[in-house]
Amino acid sequence: MPLEPGVPTMLKNIINPKNRVDKKTFVKKIGPLQERLGIIQRAFREAHIPVIIVMEGWDAAGITRSTKEVIGALDPRGFTLHTIAQPTDDERVRPFMWRFWTRIPPKGRIAIFARSWFSRSISAEMQRTSWTKSLAGSIISINNFERQLTEDGTVMLKFFLHIDKAEQKRRFEAREKSPLSAWLVTPALWNLHHAYDLSFPVIDNFLGETNTSFSPWHVIDATNEDYTVLAIYATLIKTLERTLEERAAGKTIKSGDPLLPKRHPIKRNTANPHHDRSCQKKECGPTLDSLQEEMLRTQALLFKRKIPLIILYEGWDAAGKGGNITRIARYMNPRGYDVIPVNAPDATELSHHYFWRFINYFPKAGHIAIFDRSWYGRVLVERVEGYCTEYEWQRAYREINDMEADFIYSTGGGILKFWLEISKEEQLRRFNQRKNDPLKQWKITEDDWRNREKWDQYEVAIDEMLARTNTKIAPWTVIGSDDKWAARVQTINAVTSYCRKLLE
Amino acid sequence: MPLEPGVPTMLKNIINPKNRVDKKTFVKKIGPLQERLGIIQRAFREAHIPVIIVMEGWDAAGITRSTKEVIGALDPRGFTLHTIAQPTDDERVRPFMWRFWTRIPPKGRIAIFARSWFSRSISAEMQRTSWTKSLAGSIISINNFERQLTEDGTVMLKFFLHIDKAEQKRRFEAREKSPLSAWLVTPALWNLHHAYDLSFPVIDNFLGETNTSFSPWHVIDATNEDYTVLAIYATLIKTLERTLEERAAGKTIKSGDPLLPKRHPIKRNTANPHHDRSCQKKECGPTLDSLQEEMLRTQALLFKRKIPLIILYEGWDAAGKGGNITRIARYMNPRGYDVIPVNAPDATELSHHYFWRFINYFPKAGHIAIFDRSWYGRVLVERVEGYCTEYEWQRAYREINDMEADFIYSTGGGILKFWLEISKEEQLRRFNQRKNDPLKQWKITEDDWRNREKWDQYEVAIDEMLARTNTKIAPWTVIGSDDKWAARVQTINAVTSYCRKLLE
Repeated sequence: MPLEPGVPTMLKNIINPKNRVDKKTFVKKIGPLQERLGIIQRAFREAHIPVIIVMEGWDAAGITRSTKEVIGALDPRGFTLHTIAQPTDDERVRPFMWRFWTRIPPKGRIAIFARSWFSRSISAEMQRTSWTKSLAGSIISINNFERQLTEDGTVMLKFFLHIDKAEQKRRFEAREKSPLSAWLVTPALWNLHHAYDLSFPVIDNFLGETNTSFSPWHVIDATNEDYTVLAIYATLIKTLERTLEERAAGKTIKSGDPLLPKRHPIKRNTANPHHDRSCQKKECGPTLDSLQEEMLRTQALLFKRKIPLIILYEGWDAAGKGGNITRIARYMNPRGYDVIPVNAPDATELSHHYFWRFINYFPKAGHIAIFDRSWYGRVLVERVEGYCTEYEWQRAYREINDMEADFIYSTGGGILKFWLEISKEEQLRRFNQRKNDPLKQWKITEDDWRNREKWDQYEVAIDEMLARTNTKIAPWTVIGSDDKWAARVQTINAVTSYCRKLLE
Repeated sequence: MPLEPGVPTMLKNIINPKNRVDKKTFVKKIGPLQERLGIIQRAFREAHIPVIIVMEGWDAAGITRSTKEVIGALDPRGFTLHTIAQPTDDERVRPFMWRFWTRIPPKGRIAIFARSWFSRSISAEMQRTSWTKSLAGSIISINNFERQLTEDGTVMLKFFLHIDKAEQKRRFEAREKSPLSAWLVTPALWNLHHAYDLSFPVIDNFLGETNTSFSPWHVIDATNEDYTVLAIYATLIKTLERTLEERAAGKTIKSGDPLLPKRHPIKRNTANPHHDRSCQKKECGPTLDSLQEEMLRTQALLFKRKIPLIILYEGWDAAGKGGNITRIARYMNPRGYDVIPVNAPDATELSHHYFWRFINYFPKAGHIAIFDRSWYGRVLVERVEGYCTEYEWQRAYREINDMEADFIYSTGGGILKFWLEISKEEQLRRFNQRKNDPLKQWKITEDDWRNREKWDQYEVAIDEMLARTNTKIAPWTVIGSDDKWAARVQTINAVTSYCRKLLE
């Protein structure tokens, strides 16, 4: 979405001299408001609803003071304050939104962001330090992020504290006069003030484009500090109480338009292009050795160019994901990759947004993350076994496509998705083989047999998954795995040729 | 423990020209060894035993190559490689051992450290960049760390790859000749080589002092690379297989000498020095306001001097921990503190060492971490309810004292420990009050009543806890909490006066 002059303004006509409150009124009103907010906090905790409060605004608009006032009403054991400024070393080499994803609150807790992805996007734009994003890209990223969280049940409140240029100047000057705060007012800060008029339309537009129905902005006239605090409280209380009523009345965000992506079906074939050679371990030797060199070279180039890579594996039980990963990993420098085995989520993971635990493991710039099973569990096992609602897996296709696109665009990296296909007969053969081999018995469990009984349901889920998430920038590759060794050769070839294009 | 010339050498007589293996023998032997290691890895996974492998040695001794060889035998989904070098921004402002504690493996996984706390201690010593530690302090820290983990059931294997000065020179020169690796050989690296003779006794001594029965060093003549790899494999397989046998035979590390610390009993009194004033909310107002200023000033000074502070709360149910924390927090700048509410551990936390989840939340330099309940749960609820073995809570007193001492010495920070005491009658009164007040009913649960039935057992546990962990550097303060407001005043006074001493 390009910057459109036609987008209605968010910031004009906000400042009004009537927006002031005298000290006496403030002191009288604030107490009961704080009590109500405390009660609301507890209600949200019991209802297991996560809340995000975002405080944004011009420099010196009073973000720090307003945040402190809100916090004063809350039980400190139930919230976390995230003050967002320069990223750390670790955050710099991650996707842009990673540092915010890792800070989203679990159910029942409140996360307060003093500055956020909003400011950081503008900073990055002003300084052109962002990888490939323009402000337009940021808008899409941010709206996707906020939509995913609110669709999942998080309540998001965003406040922008607005002051006009004259007021900002008055405040900077007041700070300079006081010895306690003079050190805060740097030349850089004055530069931001002089850029006020230039920034105004950019910020105004950005606010407009991120002012969505699921996550609207509350722009507050922040000229009078006491008025600001009361206005924030009023909005918080009104929005949160309304949410509680809606949720209690059963009006949950559990249904809606999942916005299914287009279908691009692909065939699953157990046949493998390398199969004709009936490539046995011994014969595959030389082929695999030469592939090793190319794999190492590829990895070194990715590292040098600081390009992150995600490789993820899904497939039938016993299709050979483990062996495949082991062979791939063996060809890489161990310092440059991590293998993430994905199992059933624990309590902490279940209390966060479904993607939270995966995004935590997204690779740093130049590194490779190999996922053994992945976020696709949502549309596979969770769909078939009913571990999530129909709405949740139906909207997951779009959410997954958005998340993968965001990773690719914000980091310049790549995502390889492998589906390991075997025939139903081959699976039975392998199950029996494992059952009867004392050295391999550990590989087969009750779950494996139970999943097999639902083979047909999985067929449907798999086809749907491949059709809806086979995107141009993050395509699926079906690896025919009846022949294990051929499968491994095919996989490594796929990785090196994909990276060759990525590195062009 | 001072550096003693009398400590037996670890490094003399290690180099022996016979320690070589020809390529043909290596290729013949390595295959079966890798297979055995793979089987052992699976056995450890099923037995839920965590394993730490530490690879250390001189520069150019072959740590990277040996690590890669070991990894080649392992299922990549079951291990994580940690390459330890310069700390990140975040790690620099944490206690020295924090970056290693956060990387310890959960049950059933293997963590491989390519370089570790050993090298980093020496680096810090050589460059005097460590806070307050000398090498002697590092020795204590490291032995405590390794003992806590091995007592808890982790298997630790430490390898030191030793080469003599001439061999190191040969390798540096070889690296310089090859264009692929020449960039690795910096002037700084040559400086380390020229310091070989000076470093030798320091490293030798350090190895000796950290060569413990629970975590011995395996020093390997690393002159011939193939010999090195086979030697490492042999040791790994022998040690790990022996461990499996011992554990299977019931010889677990579940019992031993808990090494109880001395008892220094302290009285618990519900009376409060401020109680005589029957300080009600209204009357406490002015006192609390002046305390606020002092609290803010204290916090600002801690921040400026980069001194971290831990405040932890334990107490009877309904003693008023929550309200006390809220009042303290209210007086602080929210950017400088975090409140960590501690609940029953989830699956991930249970699969790590008991301390892991708390150490994760230790404060950065200049910050304050307030724990609502803490690691003392081990010797309170876990002891009374039998959630842990007797050996586990009995050795916890010493482990806790060691952990707290390590934090204080390695960061120059402080720890305040508050026990909130109320009488049994007062607790009943508050329970009933909550039961009958719709606004406060959420505060009382079945657990509260059940804990009350075990009051006498808790009395014993609390007295033992206070007696054994009331150390000079991290003392307990009993807060008489029958009168809530007096309790709050006493707590804030305790914090500010403790910090005054800390800041001297």
